[in-house]
Amino acid sequence: MFAVANTSTELSALPIEPNVPAFAYCRRHKARFLMELKSFIRFPSVSAQPEHADDLKRCAAWLAHHLRQIGLARVMVMPTTRHPIVYAEWCHAPGQPTVLIYGHYDVQPTDPLNEWRSPPFEPIVRGNDLYGRGASDDKGQLFAHVKALEVLLQTRGELPVNAKCLFEGEEEIGSPNLLSFLARHRDMLAANVAVLSDMPMLASNRPAITESMRGMLSLELEIRGADQDLHSGLYGGAIDNPLQTLCEIIASLRDRGGRVKIAGFYDRARDRSLHERADMKAYGLSDAEILHSAGAKQAWGESGYTLYEKTTIRPALSVSGIQGGYRGAGPKAVIPERAIAKLDFRLVPDQTPEEIERLFRRHVEHVTPATVYSFVRKQSSAKPASIDRHHPAMRAAFSAYRRGFGATPVFLRSGGTIPVIALLRDILGMQTVLMGFALPDDRVHAPNEKFHLPNFFNGITTSICFLDELADWSITAGRRLLPPEF
Amino acid sequence: MFAVANTSTELSALPIEPNVPAFAYCRRHKARFLMELKSFIRFPSVSAQPEHADDLKRCAAWLAHHLRQIGLARVMVMPTTRHPIVYAEWCHAPGQPTVLIYGHYDVQPTDPLNEWRSPPFEPIVRGNDLYGRGASDDKGQLFAHVKALEVLLQTRGELPVNAKCLFEGEEEIGSPNLLSFLARHRDMLAANVAVLSDMPMLASNRPAITESMRGMLSLELEIRGADQDLHSGLYGGAIDNPLQTLCEIIASLRDRGGRVKIAGFYDRARDRSLHERADMKAYGLSDAEILHSAGAKQAWGESGYTLYEKTTIRPALSVSGIQGGYRGAGPKAVIPERAIAKLDFRLVPDQTPEEIERLFRRHVEHVTPATVYSFVRKQSSAKPASIDRHHPAMRAAFSAYRRGFGATPVFLRSGGTIPVIALLRDILGMQTVLMGFALPDDRVHAPNEKFHLPNFFNGITTSICFLDELADWSITAGRRLLPPEF
Repeated sequence: MFAVANTSTELSALPIEPNVPAFAYCRRHKARFLMELKSFIRFPSVSAQPEHADDLKRCAAWLAHHLRQIGLARVMVMPTTRHPIVYAEWCHAPGQPTVLIYGHYDVQPTDPLNEWRSPPFEPIVRGNDLYGRGASDDKGQLFAHVKALEVLLQTRGELPVNAKCLFEGEEEIGSPNLLSFLARHRDMLAANVAVLSDMPMLASNRPAITESMRGMLSLELEIRGADQDLHSGLYGGAIDNPLQTLCEIIASLRDRGGRVKIAGFYDRARDRSLHERADMKAYGLSDAEILHSAGAKQAWGESGYTLYEKTTIRPALSVSGIQGGYRGAGPKAVIPERAIAKLDFRLVPDQTPEEIERLFRRHVEHVTPATVYSFVRKQSSAKPASIDRHHPAMRAAFSAYRRGFGATPVFLRSGGTIPVIALLRDILGMQTVLMGFALPDDRVHAPNEKFHLPNFFNGITTSICFLDELADWSITAGRRLLPPEF
Repeated sequence: MFAVANTSTELSALPIEPNVPAFAYCRRHKARFLMELKSFIRFPSVSAQPEHADDLKRCAAWLAHHLRQIGLARVMVMPTTRHPIVYAEWCHAPGQPTVLIYGHYDVQPTDPLNEWRSPPFEPIVRGNDLYGRGASDDKGQLFAHVKALEVLLQTRGELPVNAKCLFEGEEEIGSPNLLSFLARHRDMLAANVAVLSDMPMLASNRPAITESMRGMLSLELEIRGADQDLHSGLYGGAIDNPLQTLCEIIASLRDRGGRVKIAGFYDRARDRSLHERADMKAYGLSDAEILHSAGAKQAWGESGYTLYEKTTIRPALSVSGIQGGYRGAGPKAVIPERAIAKLDFRLVPDQTPEEIERLFRRHVEHVTPATVYSFVRKQSSAKPASIDRHHPAMRAAFSAYRRGFGATPVFLRSGGTIPVIALLRDILGMQTVLMGFALPDDRVHAPNEKFHLPNFFNGITTSICFLDELADWSITAGRRLLPPEF
């Protein structure tokens, strides 16, 4: 195994074949792999913030150069209307299946910046963890596959299957250009299956394969009042306050029990079978585990469901930000002229972003008082997605995890959203294996994001095994039976 | 009159004595007075923002230097725990009353900065108005008195009364150090009456004397949830959202009719007599005027009161800012760990900030759900204040306005708060004449704040006349009858 200094004993004993040249190569180049990952993280590739557009360009160029260096062909940085897509391939395994490796090199914004223990774009190892924005989401996980390709090409001179890399720079803003890109490059991207590593396992010794993700709808709600900021002393009590009205509209969106109060919101949320819910109970996270990883005081939300169910097979609404009025130090006597809330819906089959947006607009129209104006703007959206547990590539992943992490993986549902999964399905007609290497406490999207380094190195091994297993399983020949535990 | 270039004809015909040397001096030095006021405004003396502390120091030093130059004595920049107080005096009129001229050289923050037509600290004249943060509130109005002192000292070599200047740098943050300063310097500050110009008239040809102001209580309400920001995809639906809870608590604070729903909030709000309300109706602003100056869509608030009454003799609650979650461009999938609202209460006799804070804390405790923690922090407070309409100095002000603006002033109530009024009353035992030179559309506290230049020059004249009238009225000799219209 690729133990780093101070690695915990739980991981140093995994039984990966020590004499296989590929794994010997991994061991020898561990320090360099880490150094390269740090270089990757140093680019502040925050896709949501226009001032970082050049950083994304530089990050894409670095990644493309790296893919060329490790022996991939047809490496291209392909522009979109915003942030470029990096493509590369190795297609010299005739008769073997083709796998499309998807990842994203863009990262979430860093605020609140003052809560980081070390600067987000100066990656640093503390204990077994590498800290930095994007360490886990998704640079570290993406890079595990890149290193797997390098290891195979360097030790064998070839890959066991055909491989194509598709690394985008807009995942954190809802992949607005991916749909048209996939549609335009159907032939170039054709493959039998996709693989994507951008989600957590259960623990560093409890690997998991994600079989469903929620959809997403991101909206902005703006409330405007007077046509200027007003002095709250001079006008307070006589002129309505858009910020207070915004709060009142937000308060109208849920009840204290945690149910969303938008009429029709739950109408299309699919009821799950007793069998599915029993399976989730057996293999999923417990309430205690979810509360612990959240660092939350107590559970919340719709009654009749476990926390794991609430976050995966039930829809949700979160207010992810409010801008309005004064936010500096001390008081300021103002009735702001406008206030804006960012709303984040998570959707389950068979809800669609289009219908939920329509229901939300109707609700807002209904509750907006005559003293203000309201505006709703769509930011991004994605359909829910689930992956066939019986797909042969899922078996390959299952076996690869056993070898890479020395533990049997379970099937998990995720509450997050990766728009590309539904797009790959709808446009390119392929299933995607969701092969997470992150951990629940990696603080993705939050300050002090980290990546557990044993997972990085085990992830490389797992990716190597996955590519090998894909070849053996000859995915193009049709389905095989899954073992009984499936 | 001190007409500026392009001044409107409404002001150029006012009948101020053209041959009095003081007024001739004003006319000659008009351009320099404006230039000096611009220099004063160029200091970004934002008291609420710690990064501007040095700017306040520099502004205070400039002001002190200026007061020395025009001939005042005992000029001092006196430190407090935060921003210094500038003091100066001229006390060579034995037997005459002493007037304490209060003003503040600190200003409000400038955000939202992008809505300024020109940079807030680069004062510029457009039409008859001088634009810049603090132009009206309070640098321009303060400076009118300073120039009046200069004019009298330069043209007569003396003042008609004794004068003391008290210019503080913390008014916009609730004057936290003024109380102890007044208590420590009772002897130095002793005077028969104070005058303060930091409020609007009705219009540039409709002067007004303010006879009451509301009290104020500024609080911060913080809601905390999980001990870290959470991914709204991974946790949405299962962990409560402090930002949404904050909105729900804010929504619990008022009903749609505009009444504050905190139990006991109105218990001590004094009912006004029919006579007082009739007087307000006769001389106060109409609903249409208030809506027009606010640029608001329509009226709002407690039923049974005019807008003028709602903003002056009724208490109010405004949310003046919310910080929580992501506020950059595009979406960010986050359940923020905390959210903070700034609350601005305006109070009327006989409400006290202490009791309202207590009632608010009880309300918040009552409505905070078990899934989050709530914290209330007091920022600043001030008692309501009213000024005796029959005080002899009010007659002096009345007469001075007639001469300075060529129009009879009315008595007004203000919804704003100037903590110093209650402090001067409670600690130094003096009444304060509120002699506003601002206009309702000056956008104090908002982007594109301005000061109407004819009001600046008429304000200088009015201040000169006020000092003269004070001497004639011999304030120390006791009260005189007011004319019938009082």
